[in-house]
Amino acid sequence: MTTIQLVSEHACFGGKQQFYKHDSRETRGPMKFSVYQPPQAKAGRVPVLYYLAGLTCTEETFPIKAHAQAVAAELGLMLVAPDTSPREPRIPGDAQMWDFGQGAGFYVDATQAPWSANYRMYSYVVRELPEVVAANLPALAGATGIFGHSMGGHGALTLALRNPTQYRSVSAFAPVAAPMQCPWGQKAFTNYLGPDQEIWREYDATQLVARRPFPAHILIDQGAADQFLADQQLLPEKFAAAAAAAGQKINLRMQPGYDHGYYFIQTFMADHLLHHAKILKG
Amino acid sequence: MTTIQLVSEHACFGGKQQFYKHDSRETRGPMKFSVYQPPQAKAGRVPVLYYLAGLTCTEETFPIKAHAQAVAAELGLMLVAPDTSPREPRIPGDAQMWDFGQGAGFYVDATQAPWSANYRMYSYVVRELPEVVAANLPALAGATGIFGHSMGGHGALTLALRNPTQYRSVSAFAPVAAPMQCPWGQKAFTNYLGPDQEIWREYDATQLVARRPFPAHILIDQGAADQFLADQQLLPEKFAAAAAAAGQKINLRMQPGYDHGYYFIQTFMADHLLHHAKILKG
Repeated sequence: MTTIQLVSEHACFGGKQQFYKHDSRETRGPMKFSVYQPPQAKAGRVPVLYYLAGLTCTEETFPIKAHAQAVAAELGLMLVAPDTSPREPRIPGDAQMWDFGQGAGFYVDATQAPWSANYRMYSYVVRELPEVVAANLPALAGATGIFGHSMGGHGALTLALRNPTQYRSVSAFAPVAAPMQCPWGQKAFTNYLGPDQEIWREYDATQLVARRPFPAHILIDQGAADQFLADQQLLPEKFAAAAAAAGQKINLRMQPGYDHGYYFIQTFMADHLLHHAKILKG
Repeated sequence: MTTIQLVSEHACFGGKQQFYKHDSRETRGPMKFSVYQPPQAKAGRVPVLYYLAGLTCTEETFPIKAHAQAVAAELGLMLVAPDTSPREPRIPGDAQMWDFGQGAGFYVDATQAPWSANYRMYSYVVRELPEVVAANLPALAGATGIFGHSMGGHGALTLALRNPTQYRSVSAFAPVAAPMQCPWGQKAFTNYLGPDQEIWREYDATQLVARRPFPAHILIDQGAADQFLADQQLLPEKFAAAAAAAGQKINLRMQPGYDHGYYFIQTFMADHLLHHAKILKG
């Protein structure tokens, strides 16, 4: 049984915002995550929505910047946000780049040394963290959704597409939607996964959706003034095309004037929480 | 005419979150402030609500952590949040303490060297910043409110009580409500204002409310689990007693379980914005 440590707790909208730390089996070191427990969790188990953050973020980014707690308290959703990479043990060079290494785990299980021993964020989020949550928090079994932003939008889409019975709902803000075709993804996949692009396909939403559509419709918001959209790092149009060809229902909303940051995310947060609540409580 | 520089701008809830920088006449150096313009500001002038932040905060704290934009967008309120002290020119020792100097201007006009040349946050917020806002932003004249947190709650109460025609509405989260009687206030006032306690009275809400009540009722939220309440730094009961004796209408709400931080503030933010909107739009 994993022992978890409550680092801090704050009353928030009648529920509680918590920060936890635990020793991870998958990453072989300490991992942190944040939890918002809505007031409904005092009376019974509630659906759980996982949020995966983007490059440079931590488990604190979502509870501070995304402005999700008010609506989650109304809807009775628990919100769980892990860190974006292992932080210990340190690996030489792990903090030299903002888009690779610390804060940039890309939600893959690395196969290449020296990353493969610890950088196992796919298995951490899909397997270990849900076990920790189930054992320690009032999570309603079978009512789990996932969403995320940018690198974390890539994570949410790929994890859901690969595990459609575990995750019943999925959405994303400005996801890295076709990582095999963009500089961020190519750099991360080369270093974490090596040169074999067959392995890369398991971590590319555009590749995955073509193979097996997700049972529920997928909500994606994308700011039309997002600099990383212009830089061809996000490529939502490639995901949309693959989804259309595969018969996957998606709602890709291009939001005029919005950029890549949390002022964009907070604006459409309520829509995403409602999207998940409708499916998870349906 | 003051020239202001737009540092950054982000679409947010149909309006825009902006960050500005300008050369200040009062602090004799650069000052930063943030502005949320609601969607209604595209069509005409809107009421302005100033937010004063607490110790260690900056002009970014409020827009990132307070979760106010969604409701301000509904109500049509502009939100202006200045930094909490001058940052330049540097004064020897100005960053040695977290509760005095940088990030801790206490919204006073310092009279003691070396602080008196630059630490003029009272005049900056009461006089200069409203001039800058009036000249550069779609602010509705005569519809100005002010609120704040902790040290900034002290600022909001004292500025409103001293300028009841300029500010038509006031509220506070966990304010330093009787600074002459608490360690934070005594330290700041001694260093900024010198030993003459007659001068201190002009910056103490409990002293001021006894002299001249504010025309509108004052809303104050205080977390009952706030460590600084336990540490006798806030003393809302002293302000409440002085207000009662003076016939000042206040609504002091003790919130069970809530602490001093922004998870507390975000929970009651909508109530405060509604309090101000009712008065400013009435």
